[in-house]
Amino acid sequence: VGKVIVDLSMSLDGFITGPNDSIELPLGEGGERLHDWIFGGKSDRSGTSPRTSATDSNREVLDEAFETTGATVMGRRWFDIGEKPWGDDPPFHVPVFVLTHHPRETIKKGKTMFTFITDGIESALEKARAAAGDKNVDVGAANVAQQYIRARLVDELHIHLVPILLGGGVRLFEHLGTEPIELKKTRLIELPDVTHLRFRVIK
Amino acid sequence: VGKVIVDLSMSLDGFITGPNDSIELPLGEGGERLHDWIFGGKSDRSGTSPRTSATDSNREVLDEAFETTGATVMGRRWFDIGEKPWGDDPPFHVPVFVLTHHPRETIKKGKTMFTFITDGIESALEKARAAAGDKNVDVGAANVAQQYIRARLVDELHIHLVPILLGGGVRLFEHLGTEPIELKKTRLIELPDVTHLRFRVIK
Repeated sequence: VGKVIVDLSMSLDGFITGPNDSIELPLGEGGERLHDWIFGGKSDRSGTSPRTSATDSNREVLDEAFETTGATVMGRRWFDIGEKPWGDDPPFHVPVFVLTHHPRETIKKGKTMFTFITDGIESALEKARAAAGDKNVDVGAANVAQQYIRARLVDELHIHLVPILLGGGVRLFEHLGTEPIELKKTRLIELPDVTHLRFRVIK
Repeated sequence: VGKVIVDLSMSLDGFITGPNDSIELPLGEGGERLHDWIFGGKSDRSGTSPRTSATDSNREVLDEAFETTGATVMGRRWFDIGEKPWGDDPPFHVPVFVLTHHPRETIKKGKTMFTFITDGIESALEKARAAAGDKNVDVGAANVAQQYIRARLVDELHIHLVPILLGGGVRLFEHLGTEPIELKKTRLIELPDVTHLRFRVIK
């Protein structure tokens, strides 16, 4: 059966966006830097699919993530931010379950179906697991990932560690409670511009 | 000439202590976990020198740190916490400069001389550099490291990344300002229980 995965790019100081993120600037100031490994350093990323822009080993890491992901759970904020920039064919190509307090009808865009879930993270995960079959369920970004980590529902962390100190932004790891969560490193791929780390959560 | 180094063990969620640190519990709750790689998992560490307890590759990493360090700058709080547990022969064996607002006479304990500096981080660094000669100056822990990073006086970060989420404690990277600081990864040693990362600060 599939696993529940948090898969995000993080600065050495723990941020997944730069400072002052907003609807207009979803990655905050300088936050695009975190995705240089995906976009090969290309600065104009409009209309560029993350599925095809990474090169070499980074491309393999990304291909593997896309191939093994069978469903995604995200927060409503991330959906609202992404809806426009993702355009007619959002890059997921798997069922996406959006956690929200405000019901909305299921919509299909290109190869991606978005279903809005109002009855909590466990319900969303149940539906995502059913949709994913043997594949993994990806949960994120930070706020949603934190809820699943806190509920001890995450199996693996796939962290793409980027060599920069951003100094501010959205922190990936906070609000986790103060009970330590032991991890086991299960894979490390060292590249010049990013270190791909994989951890299993010990339960 | 020597470099200015921050060298600390950090959890994946960015902490160098566990939650609720205090004079009595300087590493916070569960924070000793961060130093398992140094003490080989030994739980009673009283009277155990970090200089001799690590094994294999971890020992090499630690030996190298001791051999290349010519002086240390630390905060008064860390000195106050350590003074007793360090005993008659604190593990530094190099001149230590303690940043403080309250003057105190230089003291010698075993092979370590402690000098108290009241006129700021630049003065402390100048004295530490003079004492270190061609060797490196180590600055820490978190609060002092942050001051030197913010002042762009740090050359390298040596981070021993420990596979645990502590959920709270003293964060290594905060209060750095929001100007991004680009790093270059210069070394990575992958071990099962810790990942030794080394970054150069791009100035």
